[in-house]
Amino acid sequence: MKIAMIGGGVVGQTLAAKLIANGHDVTIGIRKASAEELARPRNFAETLKQWQARTGGAIATLPDAAGSGEIVFNATHGLGSLDALKAAGAGNLSGKILIDVANPLDFSAGMPPFLPAPLTERTSLGEEIQKAFPETRVVKAFNTISATVMVDPSLIPGVQLLIAGNSDTAKDRVRELARDEFGWREFVDLGDITGARGTEHLMPLWLRLFIQGNSPLVALKVIRG
Amino acid sequence: MKIAMIGGGVVGQTLAAKLIANGHDVTIGIRKASAEELARPRNFAETLKQWQARTGGAIATLPDAAGSGEIVFNATHGLGSLDALKAAGAGNLSGKILIDVANPLDFSAGMPPFLPAPLTERTSLGEEIQKAFPETRVVKAFNTISATVMVDPSLIPGVQLLIAGNSDTAKDRVRELARDEFGWREFVDLGDITGARGTEHLMPLWLRLFIQGNSPLVALKVIRG
Repeated sequence: MKIAMIGGGVVGQTLAAKLIANGHDVTIGIRKASAEELARPRNFAETLKQWQARTGGAIATLPDAAGSGEIVFNATHGLGSLDALKAAGAGNLSGKILIDVANPLDFSAGMPPFLPAPLTERTSLGEEIQKAFPETRVVKAFNTISATVMVDPSLIPGVQLLIAGNSDTAKDRVRELARDEFGWREFVDLGDITGARGTEHLMPLWLRLFIQGNSPLVALKVIRG
Repeated sequence: MKIAMIGGGVVGQTLAAKLIANGHDVTIGIRKASAEELARPRNFAETLKQWQARTGGAIATLPDAAGSGEIVFNATHGLGSLDALKAAGAGNLSGKILIDVANPLDFSAGMPPFLPAPLTERTSLGEEIQKAFPETRVVKAFNTISATVMVDPSLIPGVQLLIAGNSDTAKDRVRELARDEFGWREFVDLGDITGARGTEHLMPLWLRLFIQGNSPLVALKVIRG
């Protein structure tokens, strides 16, 4: 399958590497696919040049990557997601499933980052993306766990994939992909895309637990009486 | 023990009733301890007149209730908590442990309620209360589960009590109270009072799960790899 990965940071690199290892044709989309950009050091990740040498994956501009994918991941920084997706082009996303993995975390005031009101107070990044791209079926997923867990949920026994989106068939497809490509077994369907709000709001607690335990192998599990 | 319960809604009533049943001397504090107020219908709860007839608990003004308690619960609506506690009087809270059970949920735009930026974007209600009452040891706890679960955690097997606060001795005392009075067995210490942020931010997801499952017997459990 042809898959577009919008964003070349640790999340995009990790998801793309696993999908490539599984035999898919994955293109990472970045703003400028220049030699300098490929060599630029990235937080908690390889340079894209190193990543490419290791995985054999493709790297292209945002529109070229988005246009090439049958399914598209948004793995950009949340505060830049809308701009990046607009640069990718609504036409290149139209009719497709967009798996939105991003969280609208603002690091401008240092640690801990916060959820900025315009993207979170009475909305969510997932909802804003769905509004901006009405011809795309946005599914919020994978944004509540670290990249290593996204592609290997066995690292946290009992972990659940929280999913929200307006299209039931799109959510079925994402569950299938999560199961077949990454090994996910437990899912919580939060209903329509407004369910993204709750998952993005997990970030302050999740980051606190991450820092306290000095390990990204932490998650929040829905339990019922 | 003498306990002050600030707030006469379903949370205050439920906590107070259990503590009274356990033999404690509990006073619910409300703004106006008038006959009309005691007879006023309340959401998901008895009138305070009915509650009083059933439990034998005391009802008093905010300062009288706060002044009488060796330990104080804040069980008011989150958006009114700071005003209610100011009316209770800093002097009546000074030197005491305040267990902050409230969430800053704004219902003014209907359902679902949202977390208003001034109390949540780069702070939390728990932090704002601690700032406003520096002589009081604020412990955020019990705000991530429904009132019935607060006083009977056996209703959700595996449920954890999330706690945050600047004073380790105050947190020890709250854990002891949670264990001895309500039967709590599992605790997650989130560190200082800024940990309240993450717990208050659970509300959008928790409310979604509550509505989806049509049951308040739902919680988010910290799991680690």
